[in-house]
Amino acid sequence: MPNCRHAIFISDRTGLTAEGMGDALLNQFDGIEFKRLTYRFIDSSEKAEKAVEEINRIAAECNLRPIIFTSIVDENIRNIVKKSAGLHLSFYDAFINQLEIELNVAANHQVGRTHGIQDTERYDARMEAVNFSLNHDDGVSAKDLAHADVILMGVSRSGKTPTCLYLALQYGIRAANYPLTPDDLAVTDLPKMLKPFKNKIYGLTIDPARLHHIRTERRPDSKYASVENCRSEVNEAESMFRQHGIPFTSTTHKSVEELAASIMLACKLQRRF
Amino acid sequence: MPNCRHAIFISDRTGLTAEGMGDALLNQFDGIEFKRLTYRFIDSSEKAEKAVEEINRIAAECNLRPIIFTSIVDENIRNIVKKSAGLHLSFYDAFINQLEIELNVAANHQVGRTHGIQDTERYDARMEAVNFSLNHDDGVSAKDLAHADVILMGVSRSGKTPTCLYLALQYGIRAANYPLTPDDLAVTDLPKMLKPFKNKIYGLTIDPARLHHIRTERRPDSKYASVENCRSEVNEAESMFRQHGIPFTSTTHKSVEELAASIMLACKLQRRF
Repeated sequence: MPNCRHAIFISDRTGLTAEGMGDALLNQFDGIEFKRLTYRFIDSSEKAEKAVEEINRIAAECNLRPIIFTSIVDENIRNIVKKSAGLHLSFYDAFINQLEIELNVAANHQVGRTHGIQDTERYDARMEAVNFSLNHDDGVSAKDLAHADVILMGVSRSGKTPTCLYLALQYGIRAANYPLTPDDLAVTDLPKMLKPFKNKIYGLTIDPARLHHIRTERRPDSKYASVENCRSEVNEAESMFRQHGIPFTSTTHKSVEELAASIMLACKLQRRF
Repeated sequence: MPNCRHAIFISDRTGLTAEGMGDALLNQFDGIEFKRLTYRFIDSSEKAEKAVEEINRIAAECNLRPIIFTSIVDENIRNIVKKSAGLHLSFYDAFINQLEIELNVAANHQVGRTHGIQDTERYDARMEAVNFSLNHDDGVSAKDLAHADVILMGVSRSGKTPTCLYLALQYGIRAANYPLTPDDLAVTDLPKMLKPFKNKIYGLTIDPARLHHIRTERRPDSKYASVENCRSEVNEAESMFRQHGIPFTSTTHKSVEELAASIMLACKLQRRF
């Protein structure tokens, strides 16, 4: 029997809560390779029974029982899922009773609350933030900048665009971005268009060697991608940040999640939905 | 004393796990308004002590104690946080022991594993998916479509772009999108460029009244935004989906999270990172 361990995520909806909980826990264990499998939209007894059959088949093929992370609000469906072979870690079982006692209210057991649209207006505002980030990417007008919650500034390929999109999708933040061009970097002054919005600017920098690698994928053997050019652009950008007291961070070892969280903290931003 | 209830999320890193867990639980309780507050990057005793002081001050101002969701891997820091006034729901306390026993490995207690960059190559592939979605938005070439994991097809403003971006950011999926133009809709045949990739197409539709509302924000009083035009475009698009056996869903009441999860399920896609 092969020495394999499955990590199974079962959800009555998107699977994001079960995966989030499971990943946070599994990342605490080194040296074990988990085979991941997500069951989404398990919202009926029939679907649950079918999932149990599949899981039992998977479990029978391995010598180690699966770890099963469950995020299902309906107790009956949860109890069906629990019949499957594995270690069950159930999110609602662990916490919902304590909350019911504390809040003195019974849980509603309604599915799809967490990642569904609960309020169309707030959802639209979030999508508007996504559109804002898309429309204010790499080249912006001063008028638009006035409506931004934050303006990310950095050299080309320093990670501005994915971070803006993540800020919009996850937090509903209107994030514009301003790419520092060689012309901007030739002077020590802030780009004129940005001056009225200095308190909304957050800088992104990056290790020159990593920037060289990223730019080479895009334009191999160009001056743009050369190590020397990357180094001088990054140096000039960091000088500009320091001179004008603009907070900044390096994107080299940070994921979009970490960058977005750092920016929320540094710029004292609150989620907008 | 005001009748207020705080929901506090405390994390040693981004806060995403604590917020995800807390939101999933709090959404189970109707009629209670929570004042949300997130403490991010609480990764030292000093920061924890400072957070405790703030929380105690907040708690003293209300007659109901805060609900505190904690995602902190260091046990010492977690124990400091637990001294604050409130109901503590701690993710690691609930599950990590069971996992240590099952896996027969001690947890590493390393911070920043869940949403950090653990593997640069895989992270780059994810960012590459974001770039792919951005570059293949509203107007694509057949060459590019060959590299897509999925192609979202639908009329203008049916929700393709945010869904593509979410698929890329959350799952590392290369999602292209193809906007059905009035020319495409005038014939029943699939757009020529898409024919070789029929098995990768997923359709998005939308309630015509909602489409009218969204398009009116963009181009008020246009033919493009008129109820009649929205209705006929949607009807034609749905006819095309049905005729060619293309799976589709309505975006009217679905969030990007739900749309992405539906597409992952329907197209049998696996996360790529």
